Amino acid sequence: MRYDVAIIGTGPAAISAALTLKLHNKTILWFGSKKLSPKVELSERIANYPGVAMVTGPELNRLYREQIEQAGLEITERQVTNIASTRRGFMLQGGDEIYDAKTVLLCTGAVSPKGFPGEAELLGHGVSYCATCDGFLYPGKTIAVYCGAKEFEHEAEYLAEIAAKVYLFTPYADCGVKRENVILNPGKIRAILGDSAAEGVELQDGTRLDVDGVFVIRPAVAPGRLLRGLEIDGANIVVNRRMETNKPGCYAAGDCTGRPYQLAKAVGEGNVAAHSIVEYLSQLECK
Amino acid sequence: MRYDVAIIGTGPAAISAALTLKLHNKTILWFGSKKLSPKVELSERIANYPGVAMVTGPELNRLYREQIEQAGLEITERQVTNIASTRRGFMLQGGDEIYDAKTVLLCTGAVSPKGFPGEAELLGHGVSYCATCDGFLYPGKTIAVYCGAKEFEHEAEYLAEIAAKVYLFTPYADCGVKRENVILNPGKIRAILGDSAAEGVELQDGTRLDVDGVFVIRPAVAPGRLLRGLEIDGANIVVNRRMETNKPGCYAAGDCTGRPYQLAKAVGEGNVAAHSIVEYLSQLECK
Repeated sequence: MRYDVAIIGTGPAAISAALTLKLHNKTILWFGSKKLSPKVELSERIANYPGVAMVTGPELNRLYREQIEQAGLEITERQVTNIASTRRGFMLQGGDEIYDAKTVLLCTGAVSPKGFPGEAELLGHGVSYCATCDGFLYPGKTIAVYCGAKEFEHEAEYLAEIAAKVYLFTPYADCGVKRENVILNPGKIRAILGDSAAEGVELQDGTRLDVDGVFVIRPAVAPGRLLRGLEIDGANIVVNRRMETNKPGCYAAGDCTGRPYQLAKAVGEGNVAAHSIVEYLSQLECK
Repeated sequence: MRYDVAIIGTGPAAISAALTLKLHNKTILWFGSKKLSPKVELSERIANYPGVAMVTGPELNRLYREQIEQAGLEITERQVTNIASTRRGFMLQGGDEIYDAKTVLLCTGAVSPKGFPGEAELLGHGVSYCATCDGFLYPGKTIAVYCGAKEFEHEAEYLAEIAAKVYLFTPYADCGVKRENVILNPGKIRAILGDSAAEGVELQDGTRLDVDGVFVIRPAVAPGRLLRGLEIDGANIVVNRRMETNKPGCYAAGDCTGRPYQLAKAVGEGNVAAHSIVEYLSQLECK
Protein backbone atom coordinates (compact mmCIF):
# COMPACT_ATOMS: atom_id res chain seq x y z
CA MET A 1 0.00 0.00 0.00
CA ARG A 2 1.15 3.49 -0.81
CA TYR A 3 0.12 5.83 1.98
CA ASP A 4 -0.72 9.48 1.45
CA VAL A 5 1.48 10.43 4.38
CA ALA A 6 3.89 8.88 6.83
CA ILE A 7 4.14 10.69 10.15
CA ILE A 8 7.21 10.10 12.29
CA GLY A 9 6.58 10.83 15.94
CA THR A 10 3.62 10.86 18.31
CA GLY A 11 4.03 14.14 20.17
CA PRO A 12 1.66 17.12 20.01
CA ALA A 13 2.73 18.26 16.52
CA ALA A 14 2.13 14.79 15.10
CA ILE A 15 -1.24 14.45 16.88
CA SER A 16 -2.38 17.82 15.56
CA ALA A 17 -1.36 16.86 12.01
CA ALA A 18 -2.87 13.37 12.22
CA LEU A 19 -6.27 14.69 13.39
CA THR A 20 -6.35 17.19 10.54
CA LEU A 21 -5.15 14.74 7.86
CA LYS A 22 -7.74 12.22 9.01
CA LEU A 23 -10.47 14.87 8.64
CA HIS A 24 -9.26 15.24 5.06
CA ASN A 25 -9.59 11.46 4.53
CA LYS A 26 -5.90 10.90 3.89
CA THR A 27 -4.36 7.46 4.45
CA ILE A 28 -1.91 7.79 7.30
CA LEU A 29 1.01 5.62 8.38
CA TRP A 30 1.89 6.79 11.83
CA PHE A 31 5.09 5.73 13.58
CA GLY A 32 5.65 6.30 17.26
CA SER A 33 4.64 5.18 20.71
CA LYS A 34 1.09 4.42 21.85
CA LYS A 35 2.07 6.03 25.14
CA LEU A 36 2.64 9.22 23.12
CA SER A 37 5.18 11.86 24.05
CA PRO A 38 7.38 11.14 27.09
CA LYS A 39 8.12 14.87 27.25
CA VAL A 40 4.41 15.67 27.69
CA GLU A 41 4.07 12.78 30.17
CA LEU A 42 6.81 14.25 32.34
CA SER A 43 5.32 17.76 32.40
CA GLU A 44 4.00 18.65 35.81
CA ARG A 45 1.57 21.37 34.73
CA ILE A 46 1.03 23.13 31.43
CA ALA A 47 -0.20 26.63 32.14
CA ASN A 48 -0.35 28.23 28.72
CA TYR A 49 -2.22 25.83 26.44
CA PRO A 50 -5.50 27.51 25.48
CA GLY A 51 -8.59 25.43 26.15
CA VAL A 52 -7.08 23.04 28.72
CA ALA A 53 -6.31 25.00 31.87
CA MET A 54 -3.45 23.93 34.16
CA VAL A 55 -3.44 20.39 32.84
CA THR A 56 -0.91 17.80 34.01
CA GLY A 57 1.20 16.02 31.41
CA PRO A 58 -0.27 12.55 32.06
CA GLU A 59 -3.81 13.96 31.93
CA LEU A 60 -3.11 15.70 28.63
CA ASN A 61 -1.67 12.52 27.15
CA ARG A 62 -4.81 10.70 28.33
CA LEU A 63 -6.99 13.29 26.55
CA TYR A 64 -4.84 12.86 23.44
CA ARG A 65 -5.16 9.05 23.52
CA GLU A 66 -8.95 9.31 23.77
CA GLN A 67 -9.05 11.75 20.90
CA ILE A 68 -6.79 9.58 18.74
CA GLU A 69 -9.01 6.59 19.38
CA GLN A 70 -12.19 8.55 18.68
CA ALA A 71 -10.72 9.72 15.40
CA GLY A 72 -9.93 6.13 14.41
CA LEU A 73 -6.21 6.79 14.12
CA GLU A 74 -3.67 4.00 14.61
CA ILE A 75 -0.07 4.11 15.73
CA THR A 76 2.62 1.68 14.54
CA GLU A 77 5.25 1.07 17.20
CA ARG A 78 8.14 0.49 14.88
CA GLN A 79 11.12 2.77 14.88
CA VAL A 80 11.88 4.39 11.56
CA THR A 81 15.60 4.14 10.96
CA ASN A 82 15.89 5.29 7.39
CA ILE A 83 13.93 7.33 4.86
CA ALA A 84 14.83 7.49 1.19
CA SER A 85 13.41 9.79 -1.48
CA THR A 86 12.16 7.89 -4.50
CA ARG A 87 10.71 9.05 -7.78
CA ARG A 88 7.21 8.37 -6.42
CA GLY A 89 7.68 9.75 -2.94
CA PHE A 90 9.43 8.12 0.01
CA MET A 91 10.49 4.67 1.17
CA LEU A 92 10.65 4.21 4.91
CA GLN A 93 12.37 1.50 6.86
CA GLY A 94 10.42 0.73 10.04
CA GLY A 95 11.86 -2.25 11.88
CA ASP A 96 12.42 -4.86 9.15
CA GLU A 97 9.53 -3.62 7.02
CA ILE A 98 9.68 -1.24 4.08
CA TYR A 99 6.84 1.22 3.65
CA ASP A 100 5.84 3.48 0.79
CA ALA A 101 4.39 6.97 1.24
CA LYS A 102 3.71 9.96 -0.98
CA THR A 103 4.71 12.46 1.69
CA VAL A 104 6.56 12.43 5.00
CA LEU A 105 5.98 14.56 8.07
CA LEU A 106 8.85 14.62 10.56
CA CYS A 107 7.76 15.30 14.15
CA THR A 108 10.83 13.82 15.76
CA GLY A 109 11.14 16.20 18.67
CA ALA A 110 14.26 17.96 19.85
CA VAL A 111 17.04 15.49 19.17
CA SER A 112 20.69 16.18 19.65
CA PRO A 113 22.28 16.07 16.23
CA LYS A 114 25.48 14.83 17.80
CA GLY A 115 26.14 11.17 17.54
CA PHE A 116 29.32 9.54 18.73
CA PRO A 117 32.40 10.56 16.79
CA GLY A 118 32.64 8.12 13.88
CA GLU A 119 28.94 7.26 14.04
CA ALA A 120 27.76 9.21 11.01
CA GLU A 121 30.82 8.27 8.95
CA LEU A 122 30.50 4.52 9.59
CA LEU A 123 26.70 4.29 9.42
CA GLY A 124 25.91 1.35 7.12
CA HIS A 125 29.51 0.15 7.45
CA GLY A 126 29.35 -1.74 10.70
CA VAL A 127 27.29 0.91 12.47
CA SER A 128 23.54 0.25 12.48
CA TYR A 129 20.49 1.85 14.03
CA CYS A 130 18.30 -1.21 13.61
CA ALA A 131 18.73 -4.51 15.48
CA THR A 132 15.98 -6.27 13.57
CA CYS A 133 17.39 -5.22 10.21
CA ASP A 134 21.09 -5.89 10.66
CA GLY A 135 21.34 -8.24 13.66
CA PHE A 136 21.48 -11.31 11.42
CA LEU A 137 24.88 -10.16 10.12
CA TYR A 138 26.59 -10.87 13.44
CA PRO A 139 26.10 -14.54 14.47
CA GLY A 140 28.99 -15.61 16.69
CA LYS A 141 30.55 -12.13 16.53
CA THR A 142 31.45 -9.46 19.08
CA ILE A 143 29.37 -6.31 18.99
CA ALA A 144 28.83 -3.12 20.95
CA VAL A 145 25.27 -1.98 21.61
CA TYR A 146 24.32 1.48 22.81
CA CYS A 147 20.80 1.24 24.21
CA GLY A 148 19.53 4.80 24.68
CA ALA A 149 16.36 4.04 26.60
CA LYS A 150 14.94 1.22 28.71
CA GLU A 151 12.15 0.54 26.22
CA PHE A 152 14.69 -0.63 23.63
CA GLU A 153 16.23 -3.34 25.83
CA HIS A 154 14.34 -5.98 23.86
CA GLU A 155 16.49 -5.01 20.89
CA ALA A 156 19.63 -5.53 22.96
CA GLU A 157 18.25 -8.92 24.10
CA TYR A 158 17.60 -9.86 20.51
CA LEU A 159 21.15 -8.95 19.50
CA ALA A 160 22.56 -10.91 22.46
CA GLU A 161 20.75 -13.99 21.19
CA ILE A 162 22.65 -13.75 17.89
CA ALA A 163 26.08 -12.43 18.79
CA ALA A 164 28.68 -14.31 20.81
CA LYS A 165 29.65 -11.33 22.92
CA VAL A 166 27.91 -8.01 23.53
CA TYR A 167 29.30 -4.87 25.16
CA LEU A 168 26.13 -3.13 26.26
CA PHE A 169 26.12 0.59 27.07
CA THR A 170 23.18 2.29 28.74
CA PRO A 171 22.95 5.98 29.76
CA TYR A 172 20.60 4.93 32.61
CA ALA A 173 21.00 2.65 35.65
CA ASP A 174 19.08 -0.58 36.39
CA CYS A 175 19.47 -2.18 32.98
CA GLY A 176 17.28 -5.28 32.83
CA VAL A 177 19.41 -7.25 30.35
CA LYS A 178 21.08 -10.10 32.26
CA ARG A 179 22.89 -12.60 30.06
CA GLU A 180 26.15 -14.39 30.34
CA ASN A 181 27.44 -13.05 27.03
CA VAL A 182 26.56 -9.45 27.86
CA ILE A 183 29.17 -7.22 29.47
CA LEU A 184 27.22 -4.33 30.93
CA ASN A 185 28.63 -0.82 30.87
CA PRO A 186 32.38 -1.45 30.74
CA GLY A 187 32.69 2.34 30.52
CA LYS A 188 31.30 5.20 28.48
CA ILE A 189 31.69 5.38 24.73
CA ARG A 190 33.94 8.19 23.55
CA ALA A 191 34.06 7.25 19.86
CA ILE A 192 33.42 4.58 17.30
CA LEU A 193 36.66 3.49 15.63
CA GLY A 194 37.36 2.26 12.10
CA ASP A 195 38.34 3.61 8.69
CA SER A 196 36.13 1.94 6.10
CA ALA A 197 34.15 -0.11 8.62
CA ALA A 198 33.55 -0.12 12.39
CA GLU A 199 36.33 -2.03 14.17
CA GLY A 200 36.06 -0.97 17.77
CA VAL A 201 34.82 1.51 20.34
CA GLU A 202 37.00 3.78 22.39
CA LEU A 203 35.91 4.37 25.97
CA GLN A 204 36.29 7.61 27.87
CA ASP A 205 39.15 6.15 29.93
CA GLY A 206 41.00 5.45 26.67
CA THR A 207 40.36 1.68 26.59
CA ARG A 208 39.75 0.25 23.14
CA LEU A 209 37.29 -2.61 22.70
CA ASP A 210 37.55 -4.53 19.43
CA VAL A 211 34.16 -5.27 17.89
CA ASP A 212 32.74 -6.43 14.57
CA GLY A 213 29.79 -4.09 14.65
CA VAL A 214 28.13 -1.30 16.64
CA PHE A 215 24.40 -0.84 17.18
CA VAL A 216 23.18 2.54 18.30
CA ILE A 217 19.57 2.39 19.48
CA ARG A 218 18.18 5.79 20.40
CA PRO A 219 14.63 6.96 21.13
CA ALA A 220 14.90 9.06 18.00
CA VAL A 221 17.32 9.23 15.15
CA ALA A 222 18.48 12.76 14.37
CA PRO A 223 16.49 13.78 11.29
CA GLY A 224 19.56 14.72 9.30
CA ARG A 225 20.66 11.09 9.48
CA LEU A 226 17.14 9.80 8.83
CA LEU A 227 16.76 11.43 5.42
CA ARG A 228 19.85 12.14 3.35
CA GLY A 229 20.12 15.70 2.07
CA LEU A 230 17.61 17.17 4.51
CA GLU A 231 18.62 20.73 5.34
CA ILE A 232 19.49 21.13 9.01
CA ASP A 233 20.58 24.21 10.95
CA GLY A 234 22.28 23.17 14.15
CA ALA A 235 19.81 20.73 15.66
CA ASN A 236 16.80 22.07 13.75
CA ILE A 237 15.18 21.00 10.52
CA VAL A 238 14.95 24.08 8.30
CA VAL A 239 11.35 24.84 7.32
CA ASN A 240 9.45 27.76 5.89
CA ARG A 241 6.11 29.14 7.13
CA ARG A 242 4.31 26.33 5.29
CA MET A 243 6.45 23.78 7.21
CA GLU A 244 8.08 22.62 3.97
CA THR A 245 11.64 21.30 4.24
CA ASN A 246 14.10 21.53 1.35
CA LYS A 247 12.94 18.08 0.14
CA PRO A 248 9.68 18.28 -1.84
CA GLY A 249 6.97 16.24 -0.13
CA CYS A 250 8.82 16.23 3.19
CA TYR A 251 7.48 18.45 5.97
CA ALA A 252 8.49 18.97 9.59
CA ALA A 253 6.68 20.27 12.69
CA GLY A 254 7.18 20.62 16.41
CA ASP A 255 10.35 20.77 18.49
CA CYS A 256 12.44 19.38 15.60
CA THR A 257 12.04 22.72 13.79
CA GLY A 258 13.45 24.68 16.72
CA ARG A 259 12.43 26.86 19.63
CA PRO A 260 10.20 27.68 21.41
CA TYR A 261 9.83 24.09 22.60
CA GLN A 262 6.19 24.59 23.42
CA LEU A 263 3.03 22.55 23.16
CA ALA A 264 1.01 25.28 21.43
CA LYS A 265 3.76 25.94 18.91
CA ALA A 266 4.00 22.23 18.08
CA VAL A 267 0.24 21.86 17.71
CA GLY A 268 0.11 24.90 15.43
CA GLU A 269 2.93 23.68 13.22
CA GLY A 270 1.37 20.23 12.93
CA ASN A 271 -1.84 21.84 11.74
CA VAL A 272 -0.06 24.00 9.17
CA ALA A 273 1.99 21.03 7.92
CA ALA A 274 -1.18 18.94 7.51
CA HIS A 275 -2.78 21.64 5.38
CA SER A 276 0.33 21.99 3.24
CA ILE A 277 0.39 18.20 2.76
CA VAL A 278 -3.27 18.14 1.72
CA GLU A 279 -2.51 20.81 -0.86
CA TYR A 280 0.61 18.99 -2.11
CA LEU A 281 -1.33 15.72 -2.48
CA SER A 282 -4.07 17.41 -4.47
CA GLN A 283 -1.43 18.82 -6.83
CA LEU A 284 0.11 15.34 -7.20
CA GLU A 285 -3.26 14.02 -8.28
CA CYS A 286 -3.54 16.68 -10.97
CA LYS A 287 -0.28 15.61 -12.57
CA MET B 1 1.92 53.53 32.31
CA ARG B 2 4.09 52.06 29.62
CA TYR B 3 3.01 48.48 28.99
CA ASP B 4 5.38 45.73 27.90
CA VAL B 5 2.95 44.65 25.23
CA ALA B 6 -0.35 45.70 23.70
CA ILE B 7 -2.35 42.85 22.21
CA ILE B 8 -5.03 43.69 19.66
CA GLY B 9 -7.70 41.02 19.40
CA THR B 10 -9.16 38.35 21.68
CA GLY B 11 -9.22 35.28 19.45
CA PRO B 12 -7.21 32.07 20.00
CA ALA B 13 -3.87 33.54 18.87
CA ALA B 14 -4.24 36.43 21.30
CA ILE B 15 -5.32 34.15 24.15
CA SER B 16 -2.34 31.87 23.57
CA ALA B 17 0.04 34.82 23.56
CA ALA B 18 -1.56 36.47 26.60
CA LEU B 19 -1.31 33.29 28.71
CA THR B 20 2.36 32.92 27.82
CA LEU B 21 3.24 36.59 28.31
CA LYS B 22 1.50 36.53 31.69
CA LEU B 23 3.59 33.52 32.72
CA HIS B 24 6.62 35.65 31.90
CA ASN B 25 5.29 38.46 34.14
CA LYS B 26 4.92 40.97 31.35
CA THR B 27 2.51 43.88 31.71
CA ILE B 28 -0.23 43.41 29.15
CA LEU B 29 -2.72 45.83 27.66
CA TRP B 30 -5.28 43.67 25.93
CA PHE B 31 -7.85 45.11 23.54
CA GLY B 32 -10.83 43.11 22.36
CA SER B 33 -14.14 41.66 23.43
CA LYS B 34 -14.86 39.90 26.73
CA LYS B 35 -17.06 37.57 24.72
CA LEU B 36 -13.90 36.58 22.83
CA SER B 37 -13.86 35.46 19.20
CA PRO B 38 -17.21 35.53 17.38
CA LYS B 39 -15.66 33.15 14.83
CA VAL B 40 -15.00 30.54 17.53
CA GLU B 41 -18.45 31.18 19.03
CA LEU B 42 -20.09 30.38 15.69
CA SER B 43 -18.14 27.11 15.18
CA GLU B 44 -20.42 24.12 15.48
CA ARG B 45 -17.73 21.56 16.28
CA ILE B 46 -13.96 21.70 16.23
CA ALA B 47 -12.63 18.24 15.41
CA ASN B 48 -8.89 18.77 15.12
CA TYR B 49 -7.79 20.73 18.17
CA PRO B 50 -5.56 18.41 20.22
CA GLY B 51 -6.60 18.06 23.84
CA VAL B 52 -10.23 19.18 23.50
CA ALA B 53 -12.13 16.56 21.50
CA MET B 54 -15.10 17.57 19.34
CA VAL B 55 -15.71 20.75 21.27
CA THR B 56 -18.40 23.24 20.30
CA GLY B 57 -17.42 26.84 19.69
CA PRO B 58 -19.41 28.27 22.63
CA GLU B 59 -17.98 25.60 24.96
CA LEU B 60 -14.44 26.38 23.85
CA ASN B 61 -14.97 30.10 24.40
CA ARG B 62 -16.31 29.26 27.86
CA LEU B 63 -13.13 27.27 28.61
CA TYR B 64 -11.07 30.19 27.33
CA ARG B 65 -12.92 32.70 29.51
CA GLU B 66 -12.34 30.56 32.60
CA GLN B 67 -8.67 30.21 31.76
CA ILE B 68 -8.28 33.96 31.17
CA GLU B 69 -9.89 34.68 34.52
CA GLN B 70 -7.76 32.10 36.33
CA ALA B 71 -4.65 33.63 34.82
CA GLY B 72 -5.69 37.07 36.08
CA LEU B 73 -5.78 38.56 32.59
CA GLU B 74 -8.01 41.53 31.79
CA ILE B 75 -9.56 42.66 28.54
CA THR B 76 -10.20 46.30 27.62
CA GLU B 77 -13.24 46.66 25.39
CA ARG B 78 -12.07 49.66 23.46
CA GLN B 79 -11.49 49.50 19.78
CA VAL B 80 -8.01 50.39 18.66
CA THR B 81 -8.30 52.69 15.68
CA ASN B 82 -4.73 53.82 15.23
CA ILE B 83 -1.23 52.70 16.15
CA ALA B 84 1.84 54.87 15.69
CA SER B 85 5.49 53.90 16.02
CA THR B 86 7.38 56.16 18.38
CA ARG B 87 10.98 56.30 19.39
CA ARG B 88 10.14 54.39 22.56
CA GLY B 89 7.74 51.86 21.07
CA PHE B 90 4.13 52.40 20.11
CA MET B 91 1.28 54.77 20.83
CA LEU B 92 -2.18 53.29 20.51
CA GLN B 93 -5.46 55.07 20.22
CA GLY B 94 -8.23 53.07 21.91
CA GLY B 95 -11.50 54.95 22.02
CA ASP B 96 -10.53 58.46 23.18
CA GLU B 97 -7.58 57.24 25.24
CA ILE B 98 -3.96 57.10 24.21
CA TYR B 99 -1.85 54.18 25.44
CA ASP B 100 1.86 53.55 25.45
CA ALA B 101 3.43 50.11 24.84
CA LYS B 102 6.91 48.79 24.14
CA THR B 103 5.65 46.14 21.72
CA VAL B 104 2.47 45.39 19.80
CA LEU B 105 0.97 42.04 18.89
CA LEU B 106 -1.66 42.15 16.14
CA CYS B 107 -4.19 39.31 16.34
CA THR B 108 -6.83 41.04 14.31
CA GLY B 109 -8.22 38.03 12.49
CA ALA B 110 -8.94 37.73 8.81
CA VAL B 111 -10.09 41.17 7.78
CA SER B 112 -10.83 42.24 4.27
CA PRO B 113 -8.24 44.83 3.33
CA LYS B 114 -10.76 46.53 1.05
CA GLY B 115 -12.39 49.61 2.35
CA PHE B 116 -14.73 51.77 0.33
CA PRO B 117 -13.11 53.54 -2.61
CA GLY B 118 -11.83 56.83 -1.23
CA GLU B 119 -11.75 55.57 2.35
CA ALA B 120 -7.99 55.10 2.71
CA GLU B 121 -7.22 58.32 0.81
CA LEU B 122 -9.53 60.50 2.92
CA LEU B 123 -8.83 58.89 6.30
CA GLY B 124 -8.12 61.72 8.72
CA HIS B 125 -9.61 64.18 6.24
CA GLY B 126 -13.30 63.83 6.95
CA VAL B 127 -13.19 60.04 7.16
CA SER B 128 -12.86 58.66 10.70
CA TYR B 129 -12.88 55.22 12.32
CA CYS B 130 -13.63 56.54 15.78
CA ALA B 131 -16.90 58.17 16.87
CA THR B 132 -15.63 59.04 20.34
CA CYS B 133 -12.49 60.65 18.99
CA ASP B 134 -13.84 62.73 16.14
CA GLY B 135 -17.59 63.04 16.75
CA PHE B 136 -17.19 66.42 18.46
CA LEU B 137 -16.09 67.89 15.11
CA TYR B 138 -19.60 67.60 13.65
CA PRO B 139 -22.16 69.45 15.81
CA GLY B 140 -25.10 70.51 13.63
CA LYS B 141 -23.53 68.89 10.56
CA THR B 142 -24.60 66.17 8.16
CA ILE B 143 -22.62 62.95 8.31
CA ALA B 144 -22.66 59.43 6.91
CA VAL B 145 -22.06 56.53 9.30
CA TYR B 146 -21.25 53.00 8.22
CA CYS B 147 -21.95 50.72 11.20
CA GLY B 148 -20.44 47.31 10.38
CA ALA B 149 -21.92 45.32 13.28
CA LYS B 150 -24.85 45.60 15.66
CA GLU B 151 -22.56 45.96 18.68
CA PHE B 152 -21.34 49.35 17.40
CA GLU B 153 -24.78 50.93 17.22
CA HIS B 154 -24.05 52.88 20.39
CA GLU B 155 -21.40 54.74 18.39
CA ALA B 156 -23.97 55.61 15.75
CA GLU B 157 -26.35 56.77 18.53
CA TYR B 158 -23.61 58.93 19.97
CA LEU B 159 -22.93 60.52 16.60
CA ALA B 160 -26.66 61.12 16.05
CA GLU B 161 -26.74 63.07 19.31
CA ILE B 162 -24.13 65.46 17.96
CA ALA B 163 -24.86 65.76 14.26
CA ALA B 164 -27.93 67.39 12.77
CA LYS B 165 -28.48 64.66 10.20
CA VAL B 166 -27.07 61.14 9.92
CA TYR B 167 -27.21 58.81 6.95
CA LEU B 168 -26.77 55.45 8.63
CA PHE B 169 -25.66 52.40 6.64
CA THR B 170 -25.75 48.88 8.10
CA PRO B 171 -24.82 45.66 6.28
CA TYR B 172 -27.37 43.81 8.48
CA ALA B 173 -31.13 44.09 8.95
CA ASP B 174 -33.00 45.08 12.16
CA CYS B 175 -30.93 48.12 13.03
CA GLY B 176 -31.92 49.32 16.49
CA VAL B 177 -31.11 53.01 15.98
CA LYS B 178 -34.41 54.91 15.77
CA ARG B 179 -34.04 58.65 15.77
CA GLU B 180 -35.71 61.43 13.87
CA ASN B 181 -32.46 62.76 12.48
CA VAL B 182 -31.26 59.35 11.30
CA ILE B 183 -32.02 58.25 7.74
CA LEU B 184 -31.54 54.50 7.78
CA ASN B 185 -30.04 52.74 4.78
CA PRO B 186 -30.89 55.10 1.95
CA GLY B 187 -28.92 52.67 -0.25
CA LYS B 188 -25.55 50.98 -0.30
CA ILE B 189 -22.31 52.93 -0.27
CA ARG B 190 -20.32 52.62 -3.49
CA ALA B 191 -17.63 55.18 -2.70
CA ILE B 192 -16.62 58.07 -0.49
CA LEU B 193 -16.26 61.25 -2.49
CA GLY B 194 -13.96 64.22 -2.08
CA ASP B 195 -10.56 65.48 -3.18
CA SER B 196 -8.76 66.86 -0.16
CA ALA B 197 -11.57 66.06 2.28
CA ALA B 198 -14.70 63.90 2.36
CA GLU B 199 -17.61 65.75 0.76
CA GLY B 200 -20.14 63.04 0.06
CA VAL B 201 -20.95 59.41 -0.45
CA GLU B 202 -21.99 57.84 -3.71
CA LEU B 203 -24.61 55.09 -3.51
CA GLN B 204 -24.75 52.02 -5.70
CA ASP B 205 -27.70 53.44 -7.62
CA GLY B 206 -25.58 56.47 -8.48
CA THR B 207 -27.20 58.88 -6.00
CA ARG B 208 -24.83 61.31 -4.36
CA LEU B 209 -25.40 62.36 -0.74
CA ASP B 210 -23.56 65.48 0.40
CA VAL B 211 -22.00 65.11 3.85
CA ASP B 212 -19.48 66.90 6.02
CA GLY B 213 -17.90 63.74 7.34
CA VAL B 214 -17.97 59.96 7.09
CA PHE B 215 -17.56 57.53 10.00
CA VAL B 216 -16.67 53.94 9.18
CA ILE B 217 -17.14 51.67 12.20
CA ARG B 218 -16.06 48.10 11.53
CA PRO B 219 -15.51 45.14 13.88
CA ALA B 220 -11.84 45.34 12.97
CA VAL B 221 -9.73 47.83 11.15
CA ALA B 222 -7.55 46.27 8.46
CA PRO B 223 -4.06 46.12 9.98
CA GLY B 224 -2.45 47.95 7.09
CA ARG B 225 -4.57 50.98 8.00
CA LEU B 226 -4.00 50.51 11.72
CA LEU B 227 -0.23 50.90 11.59
CA ARG B 228 1.33 52.93 8.80
CA GLY B 229 4.11 51.17 6.89
CA LEU B 230 3.19 47.67 8.03
CA GLU B 231 4.00 45.21 5.25
CA ILE B 232 0.90 43.49 3.92
CA ASP B 233 0.55 40.85 1.21
CA GLY B 234 -3.02 40.82 -0.07
CA ALA B 235 -5.04 40.57 3.13
CA ASN B 236 -2.21 39.10 5.22
CA ILE B 237 0.33 40.72 7.49
CA VAL B 238 3.76 39.54 6.35
CA VAL B 239 5.62 37.73 9.14
CA ASN B 240 8.60 35.44 9.44
CA ARG B 241 8.80 32.21 11.47
CA ARG B 242 9.34 34.28 14.63
CA MET B 243 6.09 36.16 13.88
CA GLU B 244 8.00 39.40 13.43
CA THR B 245 6.50 41.95 11.05
CA ASN B 246 8.62 44.45 9.14
CA LYS B 247 8.20 46.94 12.00
CA PRO B 248 10.59 46.23 14.88
CA GLY B 249 8.63 45.47 18.06
CA CYS B 250 5.45 44.71 16.13
CA TYR B 251 4.37 41.07 15.85
CA ALA B 252 1.36 39.35 14.35
CA ALA B 253 -0.33 35.98 14.89
CA GLY B 254 -3.44 34.08 13.87
CA ASP B 255 -5.72 34.48 10.88
CA CYS B 256 -4.31 37.94 10.12
CA THR B 257 -1.06 36.29 8.94
CA GLY B 258 -2.88 34.09 6.42
CA ARG B 259 -4.14 30.55 5.87
CA PRO B 260 -4.84 27.98 7.16
CA TYR B 261 -7.54 29.76 9.18
CA GLN B 262 -7.34 27.22 11.96
CA LEU B 263 -7.53 27.25 15.72
CA ALA B 264 -4.35 25.21 16.23
CA LYS B 265 -2.37 27.37 13.83
CA ALA B 266 -3.52 30.54 15.60
CA VAL B 267 -2.69 29.16 19.03
CA GLY B 268 0.76 28.10 17.84
CA GLU B 269 1.54 31.46 16.30
CA GLY B 270 0.39 33.28 19.42
CA ASN B 271 2.77 31.19 21.47
CA VAL B 272 5.71 31.82 19.14
CA ALA B 273 4.96 35.56 19.02
CA ALA B 274 4.87 35.71 22.82
CA HIS B 275 8.30 34.10 23.06
CA SER B 276 9.73 36.46 20.45
CA ILE B 277 8.30 39.41 22.38
CA VAL B 278 9.83 38.19 25.65
CA GLU B 279 13.19 37.99 23.91
CA TYR B 280 12.80 41.42 22.31
CA LEU B 281 11.89 42.99 25.67
CA SER B 282 14.92 41.47 27.37
CA GLN B 283 17.12 42.94 24.64
CA LEU B 284 15.49 46.35 25.13
CA GLU B 285 16.37 46.20 28.82
CA CYS B 286 20.02 45.57 27.99
CA LYS B 287 20.24 48.75 25.94
